[in-house]
Amino acid sequence: MSQFQINYLGCGSATPTLRHLPSCQVIDYRDNLFMVDCGEGAQLSMRRQRLKYSRLGHIFLSHLHGDHCLGLPGLISTLALTGKDGGEVTIHTTSEGVDIFRRIIGFFCRETPFDVRYNVFDPKARSVIFESDALTVTSFPLYHRVPCAGFIFAEKPKLRHLKGDVVRFYNIPIKDYLMIKGGADWMTAEGRVIPNSALTSPADPVMSYAYCSDTVYDERVARSIEGVHTVYHEATYTDDYRDKARQRGHSTASEAARIALAAGARQLVLGHFSKRYADEVQHLKEAQAIFPNTIIAREGLELPLL
Amino acid sequence: MSQFQINYLGCGSATPTLRHLPSCQVIDYRDNLFMVDCGEGAQLSMRRQRLKYSRLGHIFLSHLHGDHCLGLPGLISTLALTGKDGGEVTIHTTSEGVDIFRRIIGFFCRETPFDVRYNVFDPKARSVIFESDALTVTSFPLYHRVPCAGFIFAEKPKLRHLKGDVVRFYNIPIKDYLMIKGGADWMTAEGRVIPNSALTSPADPVMSYAYCSDTVYDERVARSIEGVHTVYHEATYTDDYRDKARQRGHSTASEAARIALAAGARQLVLGHFSKRYADEVQHLKEAQAIFPNTIIAREGLELPLL
Repeated sequence: MSQFQINYLGCGSATPTLRHLPSCQVIDYRDNLFMVDCGEGAQLSMRRQRLKYSRLGHIFLSHLHGDHCLGLPGLISTLALTGKDGGEVTIHTTSEGVDIFRRIIGFFCRETPFDVRYNVFDPKARSVIFESDALTVTSFPLYHRVPCAGFIFAEKPKLRHLKGDVVRFYNIPIKDYLMIKGGADWMTAEGRVIPNSALTSPADPVMSYAYCSDTVYDERVARSIEGVHTVYHEATYTDDYRDKARQRGHSTASEAARIALAAGARQLVLGHFSKRYADEVQHLKEAQAIFPNTIIAREGLELPLL
Repeated sequence: MSQFQINYLGCGSATPTLRHLPSCQVIDYRDNLFMVDCGEGAQLSMRRQRLKYSRLGHIFLSHLHGDHCLGLPGLISTLALTGKDGGEVTIHTTSEGVDIFRRIIGFFCRETPFDVRYNVFDPKARSVIFESDALTVTSFPLYHRVPCAGFIFAEKPKLRHLKGDVVRFYNIPIKDYLMIKGGADWMTAEGRVIPNSALTSPADPVMSYAYCSDTVYDERVARSIEGVHTVYHEATYTDDYRDKARQRGHSTASEAARIALAAGARQLVLGHFSKRYADEVQHLKEAQAIFPNTIIAREGLELPLL
């Protein structure tokens, strides 16, 4: 399994249908689960997709429309009753989100065996809102009817791989490994400089994922996510509803494709589909005309970033 | 189709599983829908079971544990976006329920094309909380860890059926029909009294349904629902978890059967099953040993009261 996998739990827009659940994705990074948005039914989808409650540590809310966050109280209740015995869950949201969810969760989940923490971010600013040794999560503004943020999950630069035979040949001491993996050359006792390229092979590629939902088409989004490997962008509508998209603060599939193209992405995933569509064939066609490497999200899809 | 049908949408207890959703039932009385409890996912189950949003007018909450009410904000949001263009939805709950749900619904459903009304009841008292020409809904106390009420849906006494041939024979004027259907005798112009039994056949039987979830075994429940036709009673556990049932404010299947027996019911439906069970075979066996006409609720079950 990939160390960095996106699990799609809900790919519909405002109202759930028998085809699509409201927005929810779970990013599995080295067995740590990061949830992005938490539409109603998220807890059940986690169970269905065998994503362990105990591994969930962070929940990021893009905005406070119900289809993106009303699964949260039930999820926290269930985490409290089963599956998560300690540690903490951090909810990343706006100050308004803290106000309402602190109240709701305080009412319905009076006793949790783990800490519920809140991390407030400003949806109008770009900022790093989570950081570990290997990963950062950066929020950036989207352009919807209410304050709304996207998130970039990006691996930090990785270390180069030591060439074992060369290292043994020169009998390089272990204390120097990290420096060499970082890119440094190495000097022998005789003062001969061995270039790093002789000692190491390249680091694994660095992966990144941008989550863009909900937003109108706006070129600033492309600039915010420039260079990201895989882009998820909402595509509520097809081209024939472009006016409606704009009016409702949403995007069409071809607009999503233009964002991915302008950002220089390698792969585009479409989601947040309006319930008016019986399938997403037309979304795919319109997006692929602009950005060929496009796929349609669906509930249950597991997308490893490779 | 029956004029009085119970639709089971969620039959599980605290946490949803792949077998059972949290508590929700929809009573269809003459095409008017009455929801009892509203666990997460209720809106999607309504869609799945083809229960029309536009016909939903009343939602009754037994108590404020999340598995009985966290589907409410999403349901109201969806009613607002689709399916209910006017009229009103009345939420029957405690004063504490009004406080929290007015806040949540006010936040997440800022504009609804229908009125959201609240009807406050005292879960510790018995009272008629809804009444129409044909139906009453009565709340009564249950005995759980928090204030909790059950509900009795009861048809009002019905009118007897006129015997058409006899009515024509005596040439009875239309203005007297209602009185005769109500049980009165009738006098001819010559002063001869025709007994009601000659003029009418018996009224259709009056149906009633009692919803009892969540509660410990308590004989007062049997007295509260005495004479009800069909009883739904929670049966979270089987006999081997009787102590746990008591400790958690819940009942076993055989305790539910004892309540139905003591109440003189005709039929018992069990639900609110703990997630620890892979099926409900043992629940059924234990209940039927005491009250043979017992069935197991399951998601999708439609039970006409006949």
